[in-house]
Amino acid sequence: MSVQKPSLPKGTRDFGPIQMARRNFILDTIKDTFKIFGFQQLETPAMENLSTLTGKYGDEGDQLLFKILNSGDFLKNVNAEDLQLGTGTVLPKVSEKGLRYDLTVPFARYVVMNRNDITFPFKRFQIQPVWRADRPQRGRYREFYQCDADVVGTDSLVCELEILLMIKRVFVNLGITDYSIKINNRKILTGISEVIGEKGREGDLCVAIDKLDKIGWEKVQEELVQRNFGQNAIKQLEPVIDLKKSNGEKLEFLKTFLAASEIGIKGLEELGEVFNLLQAYGENESNIDFDVVLARGLSYYTGAIFEVKVNNVSIGSVSGGGRYDNLTGVFGLEGVSGVGFSFGVDRLYDVMEELGIFPVESLDQTKVLITHFDKNGFEYGLKVLNALRNNGVSSELYPEMAKIKKQFTYADKKEIPFVIILGDNEINEGSISLKNLKTGVQESMLLDELIKRFV
Amino acid sequence: MSVQKPSLPKGTRDFGPIQMARRNFILDTIKDTFKIFGFQQLETPAMENLSTLTGKYGDEGDQLLFKILNSGDFLKNVNAEDLQLGTGTVLPKVSEKGLRYDLTVPFARYVVMNRNDITFPFKRFQIQPVWRADRPQRGRYREFYQCDADVVGTDSLVCELEILLMIKRVFVNLGITDYSIKINNRKILTGISEVIGEKGREGDLCVAIDKLDKIGWEKVQEELVQRNFGQNAIKQLEPVIDLKKSNGEKLEFLKTFLAASEIGIKGLEELGEVFNLLQAYGENESNIDFDVVLARGLSYYTGAIFEVKVNNVSIGSVSGGGRYDNLTGVFGLEGVSGVGFSFGVDRLYDVMEELGIFPVESLDQTKVLITHFDKNGFEYGLKVLNALRNNGVSSELYPEMAKIKKQFTYADKKEIPFVIILGDNEINEGSISLKNLKTGVQESMLLDELIKRFV
Repeated sequence: MSVQKPSLPKGTRDFGPIQMARRNFILDTIKDTFKIFGFQQLETPAMENLSTLTGKYGDEGDQLLFKILNSGDFLKNVNAEDLQLGTGTVLPKVSEKGLRYDLTVPFARYVVMNRNDITFPFKRFQIQPVWRADRPQRGRYREFYQCDADVVGTDSLVCELEILLMIKRVFVNLGITDYSIKINNRKILTGISEVIGEKGREGDLCVAIDKLDKIGWEKVQEELVQRNFGQNAIKQLEPVIDLKKSNGEKLEFLKTFLAASEIGIKGLEELGEVFNLLQAYGENESNIDFDVVLARGLSYYTGAIFEVKVNNVSIGSVSGGGRYDNLTGVFGLEGVSGVGFSFGVDRLYDVMEELGIFPVESLDQTKVLITHFDKNGFEYGLKVLNALRNNGVSSELYPEMAKIKKQFTYADKKEIPFVIILGDNEINEGSISLKNLKTGVQESMLLDELIKRFV
Repeated sequence: MSVQKPSLPKGTRDFGPIQMARRNFILDTIKDTFKIFGFQQLETPAMENLSTLTGKYGDEGDQLLFKILNSGDFLKNVNAEDLQLGTGTVLPKVSEKGLRYDLTVPFARYVVMNRNDITFPFKRFQIQPVWRADRPQRGRYREFYQCDADVVGTDSLVCELEILLMIKRVFVNLGITDYSIKINNRKILTGISEVIGEKGREGDLCVAIDKLDKIGWEKVQEELVQRNFGQNAIKQLEPVIDLKKSNGEKLEFLKTFLAASEIGIKGLEELGEVFNLLQAYGENESNIDFDVVLARGLSYYTGAIFEVKVNNVSIGSVSGGGRYDNLTGVFGLEGVSGVGFSFGVDRLYDVMEELGIFPVESLDQTKVLITHFDKNGFEYGLKVLNALRNNGVSSELYPEMAKIKKQFTYADKKEIPFVIILGDNEINEGSISLKNLKTGVQESMLLDELIKRFV
C-alpha cells in the first residue's frame, strides 16, 4: 500500500477538541431553549432521493447539490450516445441520490410522509449538517450545520412570540448582550406598495430598500427609479424610510399611512398582537426593533419576518426566519402553514470568538489531572480518581510513570485548570495537594474537601 | 412543478421525536461518561477524499463506499473509450470524494494532519453517522451512527482499565444490569497456538474457536481438522476450551499452560495487571469475564480485546474494541499505537426497547401543557408559562383557542405527563389546577407550589 499525505476535501473542516467544546456550548444552549419551549428533535438522512431535492432550490441550487454515484456498475445504462449528449442526459442514469442541501425540504418530506402520525401543531427542531457545492471562501463552507426550529399546523401568533422569546433566551445564555431582533410583516410591505400606488410590486420594492443600510436613501431612490417606480411613489415612501421611532410609535404612524390597505392593516394587527402577547407574557421589548424595511427573501414569507444582528461585530445576521403559507405543497399536501427560524451556528461561533466571550468554565473538559511520582502515588491516585468521577468531576490520572514536568505540560496543553499532586506526605496523611494552574496557588486538603470544592 | 409522493432512499431512516429522545438518552449517557473520563470530542467531515478512503477496508469495503460525483461538468475527462473500459476507468475521472465509511480512518487522518498540535496521550471520542452501500436488511442500514473512543500515544494499561470502567458506568446509567464484558488478549491467543505446536496459526485457530458458542466443541474440532490442525494440537487445546472458572483461576491455570511461550506469558501479565488496576481503583470484577476464546477480527488487535454482550436478549454484541499497534502507518506516520472501543448505538436502542427499560421521565420532552377556556385563561396562562420556563421546566401553552378536549388530546399524543387547567376560579384565586394524566389525580395549588413541584 502506498503511503500518502492525507488532506481534506476543499471547503470542509475538522472540528478538534477546543472547537467542539465551543460549538457544543452554543448548540447545547440552543437545544436547551428549544426543549424548554416544547420543540421536539427530528433527524433526517444525509442522503435524499434526487427527486425530493431537485427543483426546490432554483436552477442554481440544483447545480450546487452534491450527487451520489449509484453503487455497483453505475455505467450500465450509459451508452456512447448519452455521453455525447452530456451531463444532463448521463446524470439521471448514474445518480439517483443527493446530499441534504437544507433542513426545510427534508422537513417538508417528513411531514408529508408522516402526516397521519404527527400531532399538530408540530413543534420540531433539527440540527444537522448540510452540503453545498459552492465555491469555498472565507466563512463559506461546503459542509456546515443548520439549526432550524419550526411550528407547523397553526396560525397562532404565540408562535411568533415564542420565536422572540427563544432568541432572547439563547442570547442571554450565550452572554451576547448588544444585539437587535428585527421584526416586520410581509403584509405591511404589501400594504406599503399598495398605498404608494405600486400594488403587487413589493418584491422590487424590497430588493431596493433592503440595501438602505448599506447604500443609503439617495442610492435606493436611484435603484427605485431604475426599477420603474414613479417619482410620486418614491416621494410617498420617504416618511416610511425615515421612521426613527419606538415600536409603538411606528405602529401608530403606519395605522394612518396604511389606512387604505386592508392587507397592510392586517399586517399591523398581527405585529401589534405579537407585542401584546409579549407584554402579557411579562417580557419587555428590549432588543426588539420593528423594522419596516426588513424584507429577507420576501417571496417565501407571508406573515412575520425576523432577522437578528449582533451589534459592533463584523459578522452579518446570525439568525432569521418568518411565517410561510405552504410548506408541503410541492409534495402534494396543501394547507400546511407554519413559522420558523434558524440560528447560524458558524456565525454565532465567529461572533463569540470576536467578542472573546466563550466562558472557559462552561466548556466540558477535564477539570483535574492527578499527577504522581511513583507507583505508590499512582495507586493512591486511582482511588482519588474513582472518588472524583463518582461525584461527576471530569478527571484524569496521568496514565504513565513520567517526570512531573511532562505531566504538568499535559495539563497545560489540554487546558486542564487544576492539578493534584500526590507525594509521600499526601499518601501518608491521606490528603491531596491541589494546584490551581491559573493562579499558581497550591493547597493541601483532605479528599472530602476536594470533592466539595468541585461538586 | 409536478407533485410527487416523496420517499426515503432505501436503507435510510428518519428519526422522529420519540426515537430522537430515546437515542439522545443513550448518546448523552455515553457522552457524559466519555467526558468524565477526560475524552475530548472530534468531528470530521462527511466527505473524505477517495484517496483517503480507498484501500483501507479491503476490496469489499471499497465496493461499499458511497462516491460523490464531481460537481460541474463531471464528464469532461471521460471519452467513449473510457466508457468501453468500464467503471474502473471512469470512476477516478468522475469522482474524487466519498462518504465516511467508519470513524477510524478519519481519526487516523486527523492525527497525522494535526500531529504537531495534538497533546499525547490523545483521548478522543467521536459520534457521527457513517455510510455503507450494503444491501439493506433488518437491523442493517446504509446510514448509521458509530460511537468511538480511543486513546493513542500510550501503552499504559490504565487505558484498558478505563474502557472497562466506562462500559460499566454507561450500563449502570442506561439501566442495563445483566450483561458481560468479555476480555482477552491477543498475545494469549498467540501463546496458545505456540504451545499446542501450531505457531503463527492463531488466525485460523480463532476463526474456529470463535464459533464455540454457536456450534459447540464437537463441530469446532471438525473445523480445526479441516484447517489442518493436528489431532495432538486439538487434544492439547481441550483444557483451555473447558475453562469454566473465575478470572483469577483462569489466569493461574494459563500461567502453567503457557509457561513455554514468552508472548503468552506477556499477555497474561498484561491482563493480570488490568485486574490489579481495577482493584486498586476500588472497583470489582462483576460483569467482567476473561474469555480465552474471544478473538474479534484478530488481525487488527495486538493486546487487549473487548466485547460486550447483553444477556437474555436477541441482539448480539453491543460494544467492542481492543489495542492496536499502528493506527496511522498507512498515512506515513509510524509508531502511533492505542486502544479503543465503540458502542453500537442502534443495537443498544434495540436492547433497551426489547427490555422495555427506556425511562420515560429521563426523556427530554414537554413536562406540562397549559390549557385554557377563554382569552382570560390564555393570558393568565402566558404568565404561568413564563414562570415555568424561567425555572427550567419544559412547558407549552396550547397556542390556539380550542375545545378543552382537543387540548388534552394534544397532551396525550405528545405524551406530556401533566396538564394545567386555568378556569375562572383559578384566575380569580391566582392558583392553578394540575392534573396528572397518568394517575388522573387533579390538585389545586398556588404558582409557587407548582414551581417547587417541578424544579
